[in-house]
Amino acid sequence: MSRITPVILSGGSGTRLWPVSRAARPKQLQPIVGNETMLQATARRVADGNTFQAPIVVANADHADEVEAQLAAVSASPSALILEPVGRNTAPAIALAALEAEAGALLLVLPSDHLIAEEAAFAAAIATAAPLAAEGWLVTFGILPDRAETGYGYIRRGKEIAPGAFAAERFVEKPDRATAEAYLADGGYDWNGGIFLFRAGRYLEELARHAPDILESVRAALEGARREGNRLYPDPAPFAAARSRSIDYAVMEPAEKIAVVPVAMGWSDVGSWDALYDIVPSDVAGNVTVGEVLAIDSDNCLLRSDGPLIAAVGVSDLIVVATDEAVLILPRGESQRVKEIVDALSEKRARYR
Amino acid sequence: MSRITPVILSGGSGTRLWPVSRAARPKQLQPIVGNETMLQATARRVADGNTFQAPIVVANADHADEVEAQLAAVSASPSALILEPVGRNTAPAIALAALEAEAGALLLVLPSDHLIAEEAAFAAAIATAAPLAAEGWLVTFGILPDRAETGYGYIRRGKEIAPGAFAAERFVEKPDRATAEAYLADGGYDWNGGIFLFRAGRYLEELARHAPDILESVRAALEGARREGNRLYPDPAPFAAARSRSIDYAVMEPAEKIAVVPVAMGWSDVGSWDALYDIVPSDVAGNVTVGEVLAIDSDNCLLRSDGPLIAAVGVSDLIVVATDEAVLILPRGESQRVKEIVDALSEKRARYR
Repeated sequence: MSRITPVILSGGSGTRLWPVSRAARPKQLQPIVGNETMLQATARRVADGNTFQAPIVVANADHADEVEAQLAAVSASPSALILEPVGRNTAPAIALAALEAEAGALLLVLPSDHLIAEEAAFAAAIATAAPLAAEGWLVTFGILPDRAETGYGYIRRGKEIAPGAFAAERFVEKPDRATAEAYLADGGYDWNGGIFLFRAGRYLEELARHAPDILESVRAALEGARREGNRLYPDPAPFAAARSRSIDYAVMEPAEKIAVVPVAMGWSDVGSWDALYDIVPSDVAGNVTVGEVLAIDSDNCLLRSDGPLIAAVGVSDLIVVATDEAVLILPRGESQRVKEIVDALSEKRARYR
Repeated sequence: MSRITPVILSGGSGTRLWPVSRAARPKQLQPIVGNETMLQATARRVADGNTFQAPIVVANADHADEVEAQLAAVSASPSALILEPVGRNTAPAIALAALEAEAGALLLVLPSDHLIAEEAAFAAAIATAAPLAAEGWLVTFGILPDRAETGYGYIRRGKEIAPGAFAAERFVEKPDRATAEAYLADGGYDWNGGIFLFRAGRYLEELARHAPDILESVRAALEGARREGNRLYPDPAPFAAARSRSIDYAVMEPAEKIAVVPVAMGWSDVGSWDALYDIVPSDVAGNVTVGEVLAIDSDNCLLRSDGPLIAAVGVSDLIVVATDEAVLILPRGESQRVKEIVDALSEKRARYR
C-alpha cells in the first residue's frame, strides 16, 4: 500500500469560539485544548512517515507565515502549501489539493480544527479505509453519535463491504430535532465528521460529474498559479469565480461508491464553548479553567483567559472567555449565542470581530 | 470670615473597587463616575476663590507626579503637596496639614474619593459650619442615613447650637445590624462622612490632649522635612513611627466641642461596585454600562470596562469589571467579596493587586 497524503484544510475562519477565534487568528491557529494549536495537533496526528507522506496544506493566504511557522515548529512542513486568495468552502479547496497531487495518490482530507482524542482508533480506521479507497471508494469516517445533534450531517450505513466498513446508503444534511432523535434511536446513522479518504483521481472524477464548473474554475486557478518554493498561490480571479460549496453537497451526496467507516475516536469539532467545556476535564467544583484564573466559591463554569486575570466569586454555570481585546460572558448551554455578539459588532467595532 | 483652606486627603489605597482601584492607581486617581478623577472632582468642588484658598493636599509619595498632574489639569494646584512616605491613617495626615497651615486657618478636611452630587447643599452646609468652626467647634458633616448601613460610623445629634447645627452627643463606630436599624428608626443619628471643618489650632489642641504621641511624631517628621517648591516630604523615620489612627478614634470621639451639621448632598463614598451601580442611572434594561460594552438580552448588570470590550449575552444581576490586566465577575449584591479576591491573590500574582 502506498503512503497516504494528508490534505489539511486550514482555510476556515469561524467565530463560534469568539473572542479567541477571530478572522485574523481563527480557531485552528490557536491552542484551544492543550499547548499545541489545533493545526499543529492535526499535522502531528499524521506525521508517521511509515504511513504518511508530507501533507498538502490548504490555507488562507493571509495566514501563510503563521501556518508555515506553526507547522515548522512541529517538524511537519508541507510538501505544498496552497494559499487561497479567498475562501470557497471545501469542494474547491480539496480540488486544489487533488489536482496538485498525483491522480493515484490516496488523500486523507482533514479539517485542521477538530480534536481526536483516541488516535489509535483513528489509525485503525484509516487502516480499514485505505484498501477501499485504493479500490475507488470515497470513504468518509463516521462518528458514532452520542446525542441528537442537529448541527451535523448524518450518514445512513448500508451493506457491510468489508469488516468495519459500509456502503453509505444516504447522506442527510443537518436534520431537525425529531429526525436527529430518530437517527440516534435507530443506531444505523453516523455523523459526518468531514474526514475523508480517497484517490485524488476519484474525487476529481466525481467533481467533474456533479460540479464541473467548480473543477473548471479550480483548474484555471492552478494553471495561472504562482509558485514560490513549496508555496502555491492560485490565480485569484478564476479561484474567486469558483462556486462556494462543501464537499458534502458537491460530491459526497450525489456521488457513487461512497463508503463509511464508523469510528469511536473521541472526536469533536469544538464547535462552541459549551463543547469545549464538555471535552476538557473539570475540577472538583465542576469548573474548567484555562490560563490565569482565580475562582472562589464558583462552580460549573468555563473560565478561560488568553490575557487578563479572570477573578470570579460566587458565580455558577457561566462561560467567561477573556482575551486582551474582549471578554465574553454568557450562561453555560447558550454558547451558540456568540453569533449574536459577532453579528452585533457594528462597523465601528469591527476590530473586535 | 477668612477664606477656608481645603485639606484634601489622597493617601488611601483601597481595593474595594478592584481591579480598577489598585495600590498603584487607587480609586481617587481614577475616573470612577464621569470623566474627572475623584481627586479632580474633589478639588474642583472647593475651587471657588471667594470661599477657598488653594488646597493643601496630603498624598502618598508614590503618587506625587500623578496627583500634581491631575490637579494642574483642573487648575487646582495646591499651596502645599505633602507627600507621606507611608500611610498612617487620617489623624497623622491631618496633623501634617494642620501644622503646615496657620493656627487660625479654617481647615475643610475632604477625603478625595467621595462623591457629592448636590454641591449647592454642600456649600450651604459649609456656610452653616464655618462660623461654628471659627468659634472653636470641631464640625463634622452628618450624612442623613437612608439605610441601616453597618459599614459607617454614626453620630448622635444633641442640642441644636445654631440653625441646622447640633452639638454631637456621641460618636458610634460601625454598629451591628440591629443597632444600625435602631439608629435609622430613631432619626437622631447621622453617618460620619469623614468631612470636617475646624481651626487648625483646635485640631492640634485636641490631638495634643488625646493622642500626644501622634502629634509629637508628626511634628518631628515636619522638623526634618525636605521641601521642593510646594512639595513637602516629611522625614520618613519619625513619620513611620506615628501611630496609625483615624481622626475619628484619635480626636472626634474623645474631644470636646464637637458639632454636627446634617446635610443631604447626594453623598457616597463609592465603597463598592454595588454602591456605584446604585449611584449611576441605569438604562431601560437596568444595566449600568461604562466603556466598551455590548449587552444583549442582559439586565440589571454593572458592566464596566477600562480596557477590553465586554460582551454579555443572556445574563442578569452580574457585576463585570474589566481592565487590561484583570476581569472581575460576581453577582450584584456581593461586591464586598472583592476583598476575598484581593486577599487570595498570592505573592505570585501580587502584580494584579
